[in-house]
Amino acid sequence: MKSYNVAILGATGAVGQTMIKVLEERNFPINEIRFLASERSAGKEVEYMGVKYKVEAVSEDSFKGIDIALFSAGGERSKKWAPIAASKGAVVIDNSSAFRMDPDVPLVVPEVNPEDVKWHKGIIANPNCSTIQMVVALYPIHKVKKIKRIIVATYQAVSGAGATAIADLENETKAVMEGRYYYPQALPHHIAFNVIPRIDNFEPNGYTKEEMKMINETRKIMHEPDIKVSPTCVRVPVYVGHSEAVTIETQLPITAEEAREILMKAPGVIVEDDPINNVYPVPIEVAGKDDVFVGRIRKDAGFENGLSMWIVGDNLRKGAATNAVQIAELLIKYELI
Amino acid sequence: MKSYNVAILGATGAVGQTMIKVLEERNFPINEIRFLASERSAGKEVEYMGVKYKVEAVSEDSFKGIDIALFSAGGERSKKWAPIAASKGAVVIDNSSAFRMDPDVPLVVPEVNPEDVKWHKGIIANPNCSTIQMVVALYPIHKVKKIKRIIVATYQAVSGAGATAIADLENETKAVMEGRYYYPQALPHHIAFNVIPRIDNFEPNGYTKEEMKMINETRKIMHEPDIKVSPTCVRVPVYVGHSEAVTIETQLPITAEEAREILMKAPGVIVEDDPINNVYPVPIEVAGKDDVFVGRIRKDAGFENGLSMWIVGDNLRKGAATNAVQIAELLIKYELI
Repeated sequence: MKSYNVAILGATGAVGQTMIKVLEERNFPINEIRFLASERSAGKEVEYMGVKYKVEAVSEDSFKGIDIALFSAGGERSKKWAPIAASKGAVVIDNSSAFRMDPDVPLVVPEVNPEDVKWHKGIIANPNCSTIQMVVALYPIHKVKKIKRIIVATYQAVSGAGATAIADLENETKAVMEGRYYYPQALPHHIAFNVIPRIDNFEPNGYTKEEMKMINETRKIMHEPDIKVSPTCVRVPVYVGHSEAVTIETQLPITAEEAREILMKAPGVIVEDDPINNVYPVPIEVAGKDDVFVGRIRKDAGFENGLSMWIVGDNLRKGAATNAVQIAELLIKYELI
Repeated sequence: MKSYNVAILGATGAVGQTMIKVLEERNFPINEIRFLASERSAGKEVEYMGVKYKVEAVSEDSFKGIDIALFSAGGERSKKWAPIAASKGAVVIDNSSAFRMDPDVPLVVPEVNPEDVKWHKGIIANPNCSTIQMVVALYPIHKVKKIKRIIVATYQAVSGAGATAIADLENETKAVMEGRYYYPQALPHHIAFNVIPRIDNFEPNGYTKEEMKMINETRKIMHEPDIKVSPTCVRVPVYVGHSEAVTIETQLPITAEEAREILMKAPGVIVEDDPINNVYPVPIEVAGKDDVFVGRIRKDAGFENGLSMWIVGDNLRKGAATNAVQIAELLIKYELI
């Protein structure tokens, strides 16, 4: 079996660490693996398949001989290093938002638009976490019933904002319970016993960048430039696992039963929907899993042709690391590397 | 100045306690006050205006001479005692869901439909907490632009489920941080570092009772039996303060600026909406306040004529106790007692 040289940039971050785990779990065919990070994190140790590796500071030489470069080190580093890695012959799978809307870069969710990897020019973008789990659940319905409109409110975990935000939730919860004040380090407001209706910066139109990602990336991934998306993105005091309250309007009539049947056969989707027995997905149970979980599927009360549902995914896995590794697997499947 | 005899049934509960505070703060003109509860809570002490009172077990005699009876002791007790209190000449303001959809009972939010108190027959219903804060913010827009459709996802505090649910959040958070397991006593799932897409029981149509309240009560309060409402109600690990991500479709075009101007003049509404300076309402800051706070007002990205916004209210105050006391104040204003 052919095996590949893989580099991970941002190996010490929350997503980078999950990438390593996912590569191990899926037995990704690796010949050589390199762990890269900024100067700041270089020298740290990471573990892969029981072996300890030193993290190297990223440089032009880092990508020599590399087949696949998994990037999760923020937009600025991606902008700088992705073209360099690509010029050395690596295919970059980039988890930042830097290239997602670039018309020369495919934006791929393997369950939705796998074929888009075929036209890559050295960089493939991994979509935003909230968008990935939403399109995995909605696209199978779209194929049959044609979705015209999506209204989504998110309940996003702090791990989506990185390791410092995880520490914010832990430290602030402790502080509140001990009657102390805590000043948030990564998040734009207090997160303990609170919710924050802001993820990323605001655009002049009043939407946040995170919300604009849900609009624009959904359209690009689904190849539906006119689909309507009305998002509100909210941070909640959860460590791992994004949840989404989603209402859709479809061209064709759809019942909850039909939607359930479609989703039970859909790739990467697990239907957990048995209200009578108190069964619906919740983030603490979805954390650590690779699938997208859907429950609370019901004929929508407001739209003639509409459906409401509750979609939960592990933002570090399917929302980031797992989706990136699945893209790498597509490259192998289509013999693109 | 005329003063009144007031009874509070459920005086020891989370809402009952807040009712006492609100009566004090608003200097409600009280002649005599009686604190009532079930046998289980009788004998407990409550404090009003610095004086300690023994809580009495509710009986037929409890309502003799009472002008206003504020009820917050659950649907079953309301069903039993409200007709009795009314038959003794009291006007019952009932915080349970028992009578809300009864065509003989007005369902009142003073900022929206104050005149409805005038046709009461002894019982006036106080609406559901999530519904109250939503209609306070939406009705002023509706009057000018005619709302056709509301899509709402809630982020509801545990105090909405009573004192045991508050203890669930506190005890379970502590347990998680100490690595212990905690079995929830009041809530249908784990709430610490989690969100639960279920409030109250499920109906056969897949909606919860809480969600059906938001549909039906909104229509009754706004006198708009055909307005479309698509709700998803979710419990979050917050102690006090419900938040709502709301998208509306209006008959007439509306800009964010127009909406802001309408809401800045609206009774009971405070606009906190300055994204550039990171200003938007969050539940930990709204807790303890009587107004409804609105931020994140933006022209909706999906609807031709649409608006999205973020609405936060103290569920124990405006969502329950304050609204009930405001109804009592209306009774005085209209000389109905």
